[in-house]
Amino acid sequence: MASQTALSVQKVTLPKALALDSGRELEGVEIAYETHGDLAEDKANAILIFHALTGDQFVASEHPVTGKPGWWERMVGPGKPIDTSRYHVICANVLGSCMGSTGPASTSPGGAPYGMDFPVITIRDMVRAQMALLDVLGIEKLHAIVGGSMGGMQALSCAANFPERTSRVLAIATTARHSAQNIAFHEVGRQAIMADPNWQGGAYYGGETPDKGLSVARMAAHITYLSEAGLTEKFGRRLQDRDAKSFGFDADFQVESYLRYQGITFTDRFDANSYLYITRAMDYFDLAEEAGGKLADALAGAKDTRFCLVSFDTDWLYTTADMREVVHALNAVAAPVSFVELSAPYGHDSFLLDVPALDRVVKGFIG
Amino acid sequence: MASQTALSVQKVTLPKALALDSGRELEGVEIAYETHGDLAEDKANAILIFHALTGDQFVASEHPVTGKPGWWERMVGPGKPIDTSRYHVICANVLGSCMGSTGPASTSPGGAPYGMDFPVITIRDMVRAQMALLDVLGIEKLHAIVGGSMGGMQALSCAANFPERTSRVLAIATTARHSAQNIAFHEVGRQAIMADPNWQGGAYYGGETPDKGLSVARMAAHITYLSEAGLTEKFGRRLQDRDAKSFGFDADFQVESYLRYQGITFTDRFDANSYLYITRAMDYFDLAEEAGGKLADALAGAKDTRFCLVSFDTDWLYTTADMREVVHALNAVAAPVSFVELSAPYGHDSFLLDVPALDRVVKGFIG
Repeated sequence: MASQTALSVQKVTLPKALALDSGRELEGVEIAYETHGDLAEDKANAILIFHALTGDQFVASEHPVTGKPGWWERMVGPGKPIDTSRYHVICANVLGSCMGSTGPASTSPGGAPYGMDFPVITIRDMVRAQMALLDVLGIEKLHAIVGGSMGGMQALSCAANFPERTSRVLAIATTARHSAQNIAFHEVGRQAIMADPNWQGGAYYGGETPDKGLSVARMAAHITYLSEAGLTEKFGRRLQDRDAKSFGFDADFQVESYLRYQGITFTDRFDANSYLYITRAMDYFDLAEEAGGKLADALAGAKDTRFCLVSFDTDWLYTTADMREVVHALNAVAAPVSFVELSAPYGHDSFLLDVPALDRVVKGFIG
Repeated sequence: MASQTALSVQKVTLPKALALDSGRELEGVEIAYETHGDLAEDKANAILIFHALTGDQFVASEHPVTGKPGWWERMVGPGKPIDTSRYHVICANVLGSCMGSTGPASTSPGGAPYGMDFPVITIRDMVRAQMALLDVLGIEKLHAIVGGSMGGMQALSCAANFPERTSRVLAIATTARHSAQNIAFHEVGRQAIMADPNWQGGAYYGGETPDKGLSVARMAAHITYLSEAGLTEKFGRRLQDRDAKSFGFDADFQVESYLRYQGITFTDRFDANSYLYITRAMDYFDLAEEAGGKLADALAGAKDTRFCLVSFDTDWLYTTADMREVVHALNAVAAPVSFVELSAPYGHDSFLLDVPALDRVVKGFIG
């Protein structure tokens, strides 16, 4: 990706060292973030949105690298389900990422980029960093926390570890534990990156970046974001810009062309090492394990928090069954929870796409 | 992989040039094969087994590279469901592969390995080569053809294009058409291989081979061979040889270690260019398209052939729904067909594993 140094984004430096699950500490952590809507005088109208693996703080504003609209503009804005004429929305780039928050591409105390000397982080570490951001911003308790996919993991982790910080938790298309299959797909992506000779053990900053490996990683992941039926409907076996098969290795099929494009464009905006670290954090995520093995124990402190959980029927990455485990745990601690499985054809990516039923659920829950 | 020249395998050279779907012709095609059991004097007891993507002719004999038992020893042998004390079993290495049959690693007429000058082939081309092998062997009509996965595609293609060559068709865990998702997974694998600088546009013979890319391709494919539940049962989130997470990028989880092993060992026995060509052939496979779009038209010539189709309930690569389309087409042409969906926890790989119900179906159908 393009050099981070060119990025001019809003950020704060955390005043205290961040203690991590690994036992390591990070000094001088920077957290980049965007806000929308005014913060009320009593500071009671703030909503924190957690982004997904390859997301960023540009939830409802133009991306500075790609020039594309925010990734959730359909949901966040004046008069939208998360209404910025009423709420103060905060979205921070997660720890370990590459859009201004401290990550492997950041300069270490030694003066060089961290690379693989960056500590392995967890979902809880990401949440810790964002709670520290709230401290800086002087926001004690949020109206709601909201997240889809890895954003949903952060929402659940936040509810488990910092239940006093929010009144409402909205977790969409997510899970409380990465499964063997989830880990397997991520491992393929990591191995693709590490197989790229440009990766250089992570010390590629200032030189050629491992774009080919990162591109393959993105392609593999992208398959898991779409449903089989969605892929069939969108592409089927249709050919790309040709009337007949080429009997060659060009992208004959539209689905090939689409995946290649997804892979290549991703490398313009994302750092390969960040991809390694964030997928690792997701694979490590097992909320029950943090509490000794019982998910209900992990969520016991959140019994007075209101939860809304949403799954999609065609999501095979984080399934309705995964979500139901969270519902059962919340039931076990008598937390108020509403759960809905929505029907949408797009698979996991449904949470980002045109699903009017989701808009209604979000609007209803946020209030 | 190790040099092919070291391989000493049984093979024939086809006496005539092989005309391919691409319009090209291949001269001097070699087909490597293994046989088990005696051929009857009337030559009416022969069974042809088609192998899968990364399979080979060593269906019931030790693999000369890995030293491992044949890939279907549980099914093929004296007294086994495909009983070699009664039947003469033939299994040939497919065109384009790398265990002795002509493929991209073979020497071209120009004297150098074909590499990417090898013609793009189709499933039907693979079948044509094996029908030509039968001609050499003097076998006009088979008792049965049998195949799982890509072997099943060959079985269906053979039934459609050479219905006069067999009395019975047994197709397991397969499809009449590669879906967008199937193509997508293969494309990830191909891009991983082509991203490996050792690939060198396919001209790597005699030098370093693109093992890292091929390994990533195999890892991605392997996920599709197993069911989500099977992966969970086999590995879950269990750690590999350690009591706690390492907070590093080693293979902490057993599933990571397993996938890495699958990837690395695969490169010992398989040629990366063969992987490109064979996956391409599978992606091109659409039996209905060959007949103008209607699957029933493709299979019309096989109305006097007996079919047995088997799917597995946990196979998400080639699903029961895929198989049902074939059943409906065969019903439409009034071909005798029996169809069974078996319950097995292993996903697509079930056809290779310990599923006693499959043994009974195979035994019953082969007779």
